[in-house]
Formats: sequence, structure tokens, C-alpha cells
Amino acid sequence: MTAPPFAPMWLRDNCHCGQCLDPRNGQKLVSVADVPAGVSVLSAEDGGDVLRVVFGPDGHRGVFPRSLFARPPDDDGRTEDSKELWDTVRPTTVDWPDYLARPAPLLNAVRRTGFGLLRATPTDPGTVLEIVRTFGYVRTTNYGALFDVRVEERPTNLAFTGLSIGPHTDNPYRDPVPTLQLLHCLRNAATGGESGLVDGFRAAALLRDTDLAAFTLLTRTPVSFAWTDGTTYLTARQPMIGVDPLGRIREVRFNNRSLRPVSGTAAEQEAFYRAYRAFDALLRRPGATVTFTLAPGDCVIFDNTRLLHSRTAFTDHGARHLQGCYADLDALQSVPGHGGVTMDPIDELDALFAGEGARDYLGEAVSQAAHMLQAAALAREAGSPPALVAATLLHDIGHFDSLVTGVGAGSVRQSTDVRHSDTGAEWLSRWFPAAACEPVRLHVAAKRYLCAVEPGYAEQLSEASVHTLSLQGGPMSTGEAAAFAVHPFAADAVALRRFDERAKDPGRDVPGFEAYRSLLEGQRRLT
Amino acid sequence: MTAPPFAPMWLRDNCHCGQCLDPRNGQKLVSVADVPAGVSVLSAEDGGDVLRVVFGPDGHRGVFPRSLFARPPDDDGRTEDSKELWDTVRPTTVDWPDYLARPAPLLNAVRRTGFGLLRATPTDPGTVLEIVRTFGYVRTTNYGALFDVRVEERPTNLAFTGLSIGPHTDNPYRDPVPTLQLLHCLRNAATGGESGLVDGFRAAALLRDTDLAAFTLLTRTPVSFAWTDGTTYLTARQPMIGVDPLGRIREVRFNNRSLRPVSGTAAEQEAFYRAYRAFDALLRRPGATVTFTLAPGDCVIFDNTRLLHSRTAFTDHGARHLQGCYADLDALQSVPGHGGVTMDPIDELDALFAGEGARDYLGEAVSQAAHMLQAAALAREAGSPPALVAATLLHDIGHFDSLVTGVGAGSVRQSTDVRHSDTGAEWLSRWFPAAACEPVRLHVAAKRYLCAVEPGYAEQLSEASVHTLSLQGGPMSTGEAAAFAVHPFAADAVALRRFDERAKDPGRDVPGFEAYRSLLEGQRRLT
Repeated sequence: MTAPPFAPMWLRDNCHCGQCLDPRNGQKLVSVADVPAGVSVLSAEDGGDVLRVVFGPDGHRGVFPRSLFARPPDDDGRTEDSKELWDTVRPTTVDWPDYLARPAPLLNAVRRTGFGLLRATPTDPGTVLEIVRTFGYVRTTNYGALFDVRVEERPTNLAFTGLSIGPHTDNPYRDPVPTLQLLHCLRNAATGGESGLVDGFRAAALLRDTDLAAFTLLTRTPVSFAWTDGTTYLTARQPMIGVDPLGRIREVRFNNRSLRPVSGTAAEQEAFYRAYRAFDALLRRPGATVTFTLAPGDCVIFDNTRLLHSRTAFTDHGARHLQGCYADLDALQSVPGHGGVTMDPIDELDALFAGEGARDYLGEAVSQAAHMLQAAALAREAGSPPALVAATLLHDIGHFDSLVTGVGAGSVRQSTDVRHSDTGAEWLSRWFPAAACEPVRLHVAAKRYLCAVEPGYAEQLSEASVHTLSLQGGPMSTGEAAAFAVHPFAADAVALRRFDERAKDPGRDVPGFEAYRSLLEGQRRLT
Repeated sequence: MTAPPFAPMWLRDNCHCGQCLDPRNGQKLVSVADVPAGVSVLSAEDGGDVLRVVFGPDGHRGVFPRSLFARPPDDDGRTEDSKELWDTVRPTTVDWPDYLARPAPLLNAVRRTGFGLLRATPTDPGTVLEIVRTFGYVRTTNYGALFDVRVEERPTNLAFTGLSIGPHTDNPYRDPVPTLQLLHCLRNAATGGESGLVDGFRAAALLRDTDLAAFTLLTRTPVSFAWTDGTTYLTARQPMIGVDPLGRIREVRFNNRSLRPVSGTAAEQEAFYRAYRAFDALLRRPGATVTFTLAPGDCVIFDNTRLLHSRTAFTDHGARHLQGCYADLDALQSVPGHGGVTMDPIDELDALFAGEGARDYLGEAVSQAAHMLQAAALAREAGSPPALVAATLLHDIGHFDSLVTGVGAGSVRQSTDVRHSDTGAEWLSRWFPAAACEPVRLHVAAKRYLCAVEPGYAEQLSEASVHTLSLQGGPMSTGEAAAFAVHPFAADAVALRRFDERAKDPGRDVPGFEAYRSLLEGQRRLT
């Protein structure tokens, strides 16, 4: 087997030997300057799970886990590509005790749809800080760790009046802007004061579709936002629509209240306002705002780089009291499923099997959880090694909305079905060894392989599996099949696939997730 | 007088009438959607300090302070344009008691050069948090509010070993990345462990100058950084060199330890590593790293979006103990001179007169402070109104490095001298009325005016003033002079200019800044 198509410098910089990578924390021990300029690959040898490479000119012996070459690029889940953009959406609503038991569904809703609603939280002042501490860290600002939203006699901000406030993002005059906001209701007997949320990414995408010139202008024009209370003066200069270097929507700042006069000639001002008003109109388009009235104990958590919030006017001032605070997305978005808090991945898998996993599985007769548990039971009965049992038990976790970023419901899930093996293996590879991850990655390919090489195999597939086969590329060509067969985990993937096909029996009763906990713990220690 | 060349929509959105702008907090009460689409200017009337405009089609009567039309665009001071890039630089070093009395010099050094060094701080654990609280807010992360940097037996990060660490920025796997870092030394009897800082903006600018293809590639290629300790997993995807929509360098992320494998074909990997290594080589170029050994009580504060820090290896592990924490630039950079803390602007002016203002003034015989105090004394002796006395006292504050972002020393200051009137007036306009700000804005123009219309005026200018005249555009043309003469503050600006020219007497003794405090307080209340 020859070296994969990677540049020698890339290979050397990603070497996993003990000299190059600290086994204690996974950090590189070498800088890119330490790699000889003329680095080359002298030889590459297949060592099963690993590839061994001898480098020139210095003879360095490198080691590479095979999973390194197969993994999809990391993504931080912050651009439109990783979100579920919406025109209208049902808020994900979770009661406080359920949230404390399983934070993932709510937190992943915040990542995916931009917001989530906690119900039945305590109404003690300061609770909002406790809520943040369940998933991250409070971003203290000049407004304090938390701020009270109620009518003040001498308001330093329109928030502290009873006036209506149109859709906006908070603190656009700050850099870094707070990326998450929480609003927690202590009391609300006021008339009016309904809260609204609209998807700024969706509106920006619509602007791109309908008026590319306006979209481009708003992404390329830095504008200044400012705020002062007479002693503190804050300002930040950013475009209203921020895009990443690939042009993907990544951040919206929108707040006319604190927008400073834009510069330019009269003609430039005209063009800017034309674009700005077109975006504003899309943000206010009928039906695109999700509205709700916060009741005592409700707390809405939303992405302040994406969603715009608004509220209607209210009267009976003394009766409405919210507490708000800011936090950041980085912890929340970094760990699929548990938002940066130290939740054990096996506990999380347990929660997935008990929760989301119990729902319908793409038209099959059993739920996703029942399907995977049946498959694992078949693997165990067949005397499979523990890693293969683990892989079989977890082979479809890439389907789980709350685990994997950017996978929505319905048609989205089906169209990306071809990727669920990659996304599942990607998540697993953080915690489990290649022997437990690679069969998961390959189990879709194994179906295409078996359809190509095994007469009669295609005929026994379920209707849903036949449908996805075409999305997945159909049976392999002879060349593809030959290449697949020499993969070190091909045999395990084929075995997993056979368990998979047989595990759709609505009448079968098998052990639950708990029966595999110690096996999973054992596998996890092997990474 | 006709309306200035501004689009009707721009004018209307920036209307300062009580209906459009909340006088209590300066926030707009209207959204851009509230402006009629066919808005037009029916008439404009000169009202002295203000312009009055009647808008069609709704007949809205708008009011505009004249200063609105003259102000330079706001800037948040975060791109290369607002920084003093350096190949080598003398650290700004301030003792703790001096800092507490006047934080501006150190904090502005952080904004301008990217770092500053506090000396003689207490060596009690936790002091680093106290230091942050003097100017902003601690950014708590999974490392805690503060982290101890000393050798650990089972390090989760190379920082907690005695190994050398090359130049890097911290937490590139986090978004928002902490924009400021502090390292505070409690103990250091180790051998080695020297700290180094290099200017990442300067290295990026050099890369742009010498290898535009490499620069462009690094600005356009998002790369992933990741970190895990087995339970928390953090990742962010950003380019190594971040630029704003105008292409100006705004953020550097550089840390090979946590760089994930970059994606792409072998050829793309080759190109990436070529660019990456070119940038790395510039960061390590000889002489570009400022080095220092932190002694107990020292605390270095640096911009983690710009400077890269490094340290040499050290032995005698138990003897080195730093505490670090993160904070953010937004407060620091938002308020020129006092970093977002509620420092009274008049106290700050006082500090400037006593500190920086006492230094040489562009080759004149008196310091800047003495010059402005002499000018103010002349204004007072002439019976000038308080606003003009204030303007005269403060007319050159645009020269103050620590007040105004982006104004460096030496040649930089001279070449931008033409702007010091704008930058000074800009800062003053946050706190003082137009009558105190506009003469400052116009006092350079007044020199050009007087040179044009007053025989013999040019001849009595000092040598330095003649030199700057040419930088400022030379004497006005007849048309320019006529336009200047009708400005409502032209007469005050000319009067200020005459005090200015006479206020360069090395032997003259005049009252100090304190003599003007109540006058300034009175002016401030007029805004």
C-alpha cells in the first residue's frame, strides 16, 4: 500500500509519533519550523490500524493512525452551512428538571435553530446565572454579570422602557460581541411585551438570493456601532452581515438604535440605505418571526450572532421583570451534544438511546434505538470482538439530530443520509479507537460493496434501504469494490452491515443500552 | 446655506430631533423601516450650531448638530490602520501605584503596540484578577477565571511543562477567542523561562509586502484548531490571518500545537504549508521578538489577537509560578484613554497635561502642556467666552498618543499632523458642545486661512509651524478662504489660532490645568 495523496510536509506536521505529538494531551510537540524544508517520504508501510512512514532527509520514523486520512474536515458549526435556517420553526421547549438531566436537546437546538426555551425554572433573582453555569460561562460586561430588564425612570437604554423594540442584535458596539444571550422571566403581569425572534441568517440568505448586490454591499461595508452613558464609550466597526473567507454567512449585527452615521458620498449613502432597507424588510417579512410571551420561570437562550430579537410595547410597567445575561457559543458549539460541559460521552449516548433514538427510523418498522440495539445483540450473539459490538451498537448515531450539527429533519436528513456514516464515525473518533469507529464509517460503503459482489444481497434490502442506496451512489464498480476489500476494517464493516440488515424486526426484544455500558467503557480506555 | 451633500435617507435616519433620538441615551427611537421610502429634503435652514431640515413627503422637521457633518468616520481601533506596528519596541512599563493613579498610558500602549508591562504589583495569588478589574472584565473559560502556569505532573497543556514554547496565540480553538491575555508572576527562581512577544500584524504586513500570494492564501483559508482534555472538546475554524472587509489585517491565530490537519489535495497542502512556513519564518525573524524575564510582581498584558507570545525552556520547576487570565479588548479599545472604566474625561485630561503633555512638542521651545496652558491664559486674558477658552486649552489634544488611536511617534505624528485637529475635536465631541469642539477642528484650517488673507501672518509663524503648513495644504485658495469665512465657528477658530501662535514662550509662567477644571465642568454639562 502506498502513501495516501498527502503532501510530505502535511504528513510530517501531522505525525503521531511520541516525539511529534504529546500523548498526554494530543498537542503537537513540534512547530512547523522544525520540519526540514526538503522533507520527503522515503517509504510508507501498512501497519493495519496505522501507516508507518520513513521521512527524508532526516530518516524520521512517523506513525499515522489510519483514521487521520479518512476524517472529514473539522467544522466549528458557526456558519450557515452548519445551521438549520428557518422561516418558521417550533421552539424547542424543555422543562428545567428535564434539562438538568439531559442538557443536549436544548443546547443543540440553540446551535441548530439559534434558540431554545427553558420552562419551569426557579424565579429567584440570579437564576439566569445558574442557567449559564450549566453549559458555559457568563460574559460580564459594563452592564454587569446580569442586567435587569424593567422600566427605569432614567433609562440608559431603550430596553429599560416600555417602548416596543424592533428586531435587533444586542451589543453590536462590542467586539467580541456576546455570542449568546439569555432572558429569564421573574414576573410578567404586563399587557403586551411579547417577545419575537427572527432568523438573521435566513434573511441574509434570502437577500443573497433576491438581491445579490445588496447582500454583497452589506458584507463589504464596515459600519460603526456605538453606545455611551456619558462615561463609558463603546464602539465596534463591522459589516452588518459578516461572512467567512469562503463567503458563508457567519455573523449578523443589526441595531439601528446604535448605528453611527455611515460615511461615504451621497450616492454611496443611497446605495447603502437601499441595501440596508432591503435586509430590514426581509427581517420583518410576514410570518418569519416566532413570537411568545415569557411567563415567570421561562428563559429563552439565543444566538446573538444570528437571531434578532424584538418585543412589543407593554404597559403596567412594574409588573414585568426579566433578568438577562450574556454568554458565549464557543463552549456550546464545540462539543456536539453537551456544550462544553463535562458530560460523559457514554452518558450522552445513553440519553440519545432513551430520547431521540426512540422515534421513527426513516420509515422502518422499528425506532433507531431499537434497531441499533437489535443489531448489537446480533453482533454479540455472533461472538464478535468488543470493538465490533460497539461499532454495531453505535453505527447509526450520525442520524441523531442533537448529536450531529447541521442535520435537520425530513428531506434534509434523507439527502444527507450518505454522510451519516462519516458524521457518526467522526463523533465517535473523539472517544473510541479506530476499530470501533472505522466499521461505522464504512458501513454504508459496505452496503454498496455487498450489492456489487454478492448475488441476491440487493434483493433482501428493505424498501427504505433500497431508496437510500441510490442516494449513496448505488452498487460499487468493480474497481471500487476491489479498493474497498483491502481496507483493514472492510471485513468488520461487512459483518456490521449484515447485522444492520437483519435488525429491523418489530417483534424482537433485546437488552437495552445499559447492557453495553461496561463494554463501551472498556473500548473508551483504548484510545 | 444649502443642505450638505448627504442622501435624504441618511439625513432622516440620523435626525437628532427629540422624536427620532432619545436625548437621555443618544439611541435612535426610529428604525430604518420607519423612514418613508420616498423621503426627500424640502428645505434646509442654517440655525447656527444646527441645521434645520424639513423632509418630504411627511413634513417631518429634522434638527442636525453641525458637528454631525464634519466628523471623521468612527473607528474601533482594531485593524492594522489603528496600530503602531513594530519590528522592535521598548516595552511600556508602569509601576502599579502609578498605574492605579493613571491607567491610560499603560492601557493605550496595549492598544497601540499590543502590550504593556506592569511592575511592582502585589504577589498574592489572584492579583491578576484584580488587575483585570481595573480596566475590564475577566473572560472565564474552562481553564477557570485564572489559570496557574507551573509545571504539572500530568499536564493537559504544554504550558504546564518546562518545555520551550514557540511564538503562538492562545486559545485559537475558541470563538470568540479571548482578545487580551495577562500573565502575572508570583515567583520565579527558575533558570530560563524568558518571555518573548512578536508583532503578528507586522509579520503579516511583511508577508503581504514580500509574498502576496502567501498572504492571500492565509487570509482566505479557514483552518481548524482544536483542543480536548478527554471530556471537553473545543474547536474553531478561522483563517490564520483575519482581515476586515476592506482587506486590513485584524486578527492573527497562530498555534501549531492545536492546528488540526488542513484539508485539500496534496498540491493545496503544499501551497498552504509554503505560505504557513513563510509566515512562521517572518514571526521568527532575528530581532523581531521583544524578550524579558518576568520577575515576581510583574504582569504583562497583551493583545491575543495580534501579538504572539513564546517562552524559552526552564529548569528548577518548582520555582516558577505565573497566574494567567483572559479578558477582552472591547472595553480597553473603546474608550480612548481609559479603557471602558468610568474615568471622568476631565480627570483624564488632567492626567494628560501632567504626563505625556509635559514632553517635547514637535521641536517647539515649550512642551505641549505648557503651550496649551499659555494659549488658554491668553484666551482668558482676552475675555473670551468659556467655550472658546476650553477649546483653546484643549486645541492640540489630538497630538496625544495615549488619547488618540493610531497616532504614533516621530514621523508618523508629523505626517498625520494635518489630522490632529479632527481627531482632537472628535474626542472632545463626546463630552463637550460644538462651541468648544468646532474651533479645535478648524484651528489648522484657520492657519491656512490667515496665511491666505492676512499679509505678514505667514512670516511670524514658528519654524515648526511653517513646516506643518505645507503638510496641511499650504495657504488657502481664494475660494477656500471664502468658504471658510462663512463657517459659524470661523471667527472663534481664528481667535484660537492667534492665541496658539503666541503661546510658545519658554519663559512664561501661567496657571495649571486645575485653574480650568470648573470651566470645563460647566462646558461639559452643556452637551
